[in-house]
Amino acid sequence: MESSPATSVVAWRYAGGVLSLLDQRLLPHEEVVLDCTTALETAEAIRSLAVRGAPLIGVAAAYGMCVEARRVLGRVPADLDVALEAAAGRLASARPTAVNLGAAVERMSRVVRATAGGEPGERVRRLEEEADRLAAEDRAACLEIGRLGATWLRSRLAAPRPTVLTHCNAGALATAGIGTALGVVRTLAAAGPLAVLADETRPFLQGARLTAWELAKDGLPVTLLPDVAAAALLAQGRVDAVVVGADRIARNGDVANKVGTYGLALAARAHGVPFVVAAPTTTLDPATPDGAAIPIEMRDGAEVVDLPLPHGGRTSLAPPGISALYPAFDVTPAALVSAIVTERGISEAPHAAGLSRLLAVR
Amino acid sequence: MESSPATSVVAWRYAGGVLSLLDQRLLPHEEVVLDCTTALETAEAIRSLAVRGAPLIGVAAAYGMCVEARRVLGRVPADLDVALEAAAGRLASARPTAVNLGAAVERMSRVVRATAGGEPGERVRRLEEEADRLAAEDRAACLEIGRLGATWLRSRLAAPRPTVLTHCNAGALATAGIGTALGVVRTLAAAGPLAVLADETRPFLQGARLTAWELAKDGLPVTLLPDVAAAALLAQGRVDAVVVGADRIARNGDVANKVGTYGLALAARAHGVPFVVAAPTTTLDPATPDGAAIPIEMRDGAEVVDLPLPHGGRTSLAPPGISALYPAFDVTPAALVSAIVTERGISEAPHAAGLSRLLAVR
Repeated sequence: MESSPATSVVAWRYAGGVLSLLDQRLLPHEEVVLDCTTALETAEAIRSLAVRGAPLIGVAAAYGMCVEARRVLGRVPADLDVALEAAAGRLASARPTAVNLGAAVERMSRVVRATAGGEPGERVRRLEEEADRLAAEDRAACLEIGRLGATWLRSRLAAPRPTVLTHCNAGALATAGIGTALGVVRTLAAAGPLAVLADETRPFLQGARLTAWELAKDGLPVTLLPDVAAAALLAQGRVDAVVVGADRIARNGDVANKVGTYGLALAARAHGVPFVVAAPTTTLDPATPDGAAIPIEMRDGAEVVDLPLPHGGRTSLAPPGISALYPAFDVTPAALVSAIVTERGISEAPHAAGLSRLLAVR
Repeated sequence: MESSPATSVVAWRYAGGVLSLLDQRLLPHEEVVLDCTTALETAEAIRSLAVRGAPLIGVAAAYGMCVEARRVLGRVPADLDVALEAAAGRLASARPTAVNLGAAVERMSRVVRATAGGEPGERVRRLEEEADRLAAEDRAACLEIGRLGATWLRSRLAAPRPTVLTHCNAGALATAGIGTALGVVRTLAAAGPLAVLADETRPFLQGARLTAWELAKDGLPVTLLPDVAAAALLAQGRVDAVVVGADRIARNGDVANKVGTYGLALAARAHGVPFVVAAPTTTLDPATPDGAAIPIEMRDGAEVVDLPLPHGGRTSLAPPGISALYPAFDVTPAALVSAIVTERGISEAPHAAGLSRLLAVR
């Protein structure tokens, strides 16, 4: 019985100059909405991971421009252009790796420039329309990525109830729609039996806290595993495909995604399991030649050592004074990626050619 | 300035029929000693991971036979043979993967059989002598593994301050001595500058809680990383060697060790970094032909989802009702192992021949 892929997750909402974000730091224990009414608050929500996921931080930043515009509009004297230029700088620099963030801000800045000298209220409405359009495009991209990815995978999955493994969260909590990797998962699940394995994804636990939460919320079966167990399960033939999202894809097809993706890709390759990257074309960065040129965010090692507790407080996982490294992303070489699924089509290796073909579409 | 490798860690002590174990579940926050006065308590300490590490659970089980013997000796009527046979069964089956456990228990059972019909007090003294001998042998093996492993690695480490990465804990908390992998680390560090990276090793966090604690206690510098970051650091050339312990090594050289070891070995191979397994010959299991024949312990998924808190209580990392998989070990194929360092010498590939040569020594 085939149904339409959908989600009941509401990760964000924009109305009347307020961007309301489901605070992802507190999931799954508390569903708290964080209201951002300034660009600074929005940038801080992005930096602190209250909102995360490459496509969704692009959407959040676009609305961050809108909340700033509405805020300034209510003030006298108000210089929209000065305020929005500062907002754009703050939002674009909140996190370095996802290309969607800077691109979304630049897209909004183009509207600021295009409407320069216009009536302020009208300019803000134009910004809001642009942000709405960006969100709608991302929502549509997720559906199409899901459809294309599911079709590509279905022809390669022989098991009556195949098992798909994912890392981090590339779902409704990372996009404006049903997700990229989880868009593929939702589309597969809408068409037939499917088992989903989710890496817990240390240290922020996007898998344990977010992917498990959103799949369970939508009634999809999900089983967690420690990240370290993925290679063993692949070796045992218990995984039929790996599907992940991406934060930035270089021109040659190298993929920056949540740290741990590279190790997973090596293990998938060692066992001949398809390794699929699902991402909107907004994640493609033709200006970056290869993975070595992608800036990798180094977060505070304290985020590895200290675990936030539900309802406040933290617990330390290590002895006092121990330092830790926390590269938030890693780079998976294009050669390990079986398919890059975008809303415009699918790139198979060699990806340099495949991606350039996709970018030429439309 | 070269000094002797040593440790200030006291992980266990046996005296007067009591086996005192540093409760590793509570480290690094509390140093609590757990006194075992029965085989059942000792088996439970092994099962619950209050004491862990392949060589050390062998030592603990040997003394578990002693505490049981002392306990029964104080009772009337006492049948030492019946009690020790039951104790042996309980201890040997406490955990399935480490071959040292069953082998240590069998070694003690041979003393039970060899002294059958003898004076009970004398029989118990013979058991205690055997356990002391086993512990002393493990202590000596660690020193020799450290010496051989450090020599082998030094000739391959060009950096003035090389970086060694380890997974789990194969140190003074896993052996009767300075450790196997950490024996190599301690020996290298005694001879010159060294940086140590420790995988945090989810879900039990042996790296964050135990390796960090014992290295810091001995004044050695250690930096933690999420397990998922190891492949990225290897790709960046920031790791000069990987050194791990083992729970069981099959006849062909396949290595069962803490889950995550296999993925690490794949990444080390992908970047030409030496991958060294350091383990006493008690870990070699010539009766097991290859990794596929090694029993892999599946622990309760609740240990992945729930994190014990210091000073009691637990916190859930996932939404209610989410299940998890927890294979406690994985198998690294012999072909990925650069060297297996034992106290009798070093096996390089092909390991089937190398190990058979080591087993023929003495």
